[in-house]
Amino acid sequence: MRLRKVKNAQIKIDESNYIIKNPTTYKGNFNCIFKNDNPIYIEIGMGKGDFIIKNAYEYPNINFIGIEKFDSVMVRAVEKLEDIDLPNLRLIKTDALEIQNIFNKEISCLYLNFSDPWPKKRHTNRRLTSLLFLQKYDYIFKNSKKIIMKTDNRHLFEYSIKSFTDYGYKIEHLSLDLYADDVSLNIQTEYEKKFVAKGMTIYYIEVTK
Amino acid sequence: MRLRKVKNAQIKIDESNYIIKNPTTYKGNFNCIFKNDNPIYIEIGMGKGDFIIKNAYEYPNINFIGIEKFDSVMVRAVEKLEDIDLPNLRLIKTDALEIQNIFNKEISCLYLNFSDPWPKKRHTNRRLTSLLFLQKYDYIFKNSKKIIMKTDNRHLFEYSIKSFTDYGYKIEHLSLDLYADDVSLNIQTEYEKKFVAKGMTIYYIEVTK
Repeated sequence: MRLRKVKNAQIKIDESNYIIKNPTTYKGNFNCIFKNDNPIYIEIGMGKGDFIIKNAYEYPNINFIGIEKFDSVMVRAVEKLEDIDLPNLRLIKTDALEIQNIFNKEISCLYLNFSDPWPKKRHTNRRLTSLLFLQKYDYIFKNSKKIIMKTDNRHLFEYSIKSFTDYGYKIEHLSLDLYADDVSLNIQTEYEKKFVAKGMTIYYIEVTK
Repeated sequence: MRLRKVKNAQIKIDESNYIIKNPTTYKGNFNCIFKNDNPIYIEIGMGKGDFIIKNAYEYPNINFIGIEKFDSVMVRAVEKLEDIDLPNLRLIKTDALEIQNIFNKEISCLYLNFSDPWPKKRHTNRRLTSLLFLQKYDYIFKNSKKIIMKTDNRHLFEYSIKSFTDYGYKIEHLSLDLYADDVSLNIQTEYEKKFVAKGMTIYYIEVTK
């Protein structure tokens, strides 16, 4: 992702009510933040937030937490939310590597949208669908595990199908060309919008365990 | 597959030394036909035989058996073999449904190339990667199971990835665009040649169990 320096990004993020500060203090108790027992869905690498914000609008009975490590894109999500009240949405600024220090058996679904493909072999572990991460996710899921992934990157997708199934995940849905199928319920990310406009193939997979 | 009526197809097939007549009588003993203990690889739906014939040339230490139910295409393979001596190749004319009546724990690898996609839901069982067929294949494999599949049909491929992994197969190799990867060792089928010339995407998967 090309990152631009955004003026006062840190300040804007710190001042937003959507941001959960010190998220580790809520470990195992994130439902307290939402004041209900609705399922919690998270997106790791939410970027500028379009996907998670639209989901929060669309599904008021699900709680959404967007996770992003880069100030410069997160601030864009924060700006979009400035005059909006979405009680079922919160954001956390952190690295995905920290995920198991933040959540404990309380997540119902994980979204991975257009994650960094980390194409080099020596960076395999950094892919959000590597064994390293799948093992981390085991700690955050409540009962059953559910991961929904979209990407335009063929090699990341091939790798991920193999990684998911090697780890015992069952494929529930799979599309090797999402936009050739029915996308009436699909919620786009910023990247997705651009890629689709360029006619690029979007891959989709939903797995459970 | 569009089938043309070929004159004397039945006679030509019956007269070919490559054809194994009464294949059920060799059940469990196909190595006797080849007079060696080399591994036996089969292709179900070999069509006009390009793939299996080239494999037999390329890998003399593997025995190949091509299976096809339609006279009209099988005769083309037979014609290609008329003046050729390939001791490691034989052909069987039968329906794939009969496979477990023909082989018994003696196959090392199964090729499925550009199989009929049977797109209608009510025909799911006819797909060569359906649960029905995967269960049949269990009886024919020697020790470990290995299936290698190529297709241009996206829906069949999506279905097959799910079917294989649901049944406990492990993905060894997967390509969602074979010709964008290294194809130096790839042996083409007749269909494949045409599809590639048209710029169509070829999918590839290799699974083991």
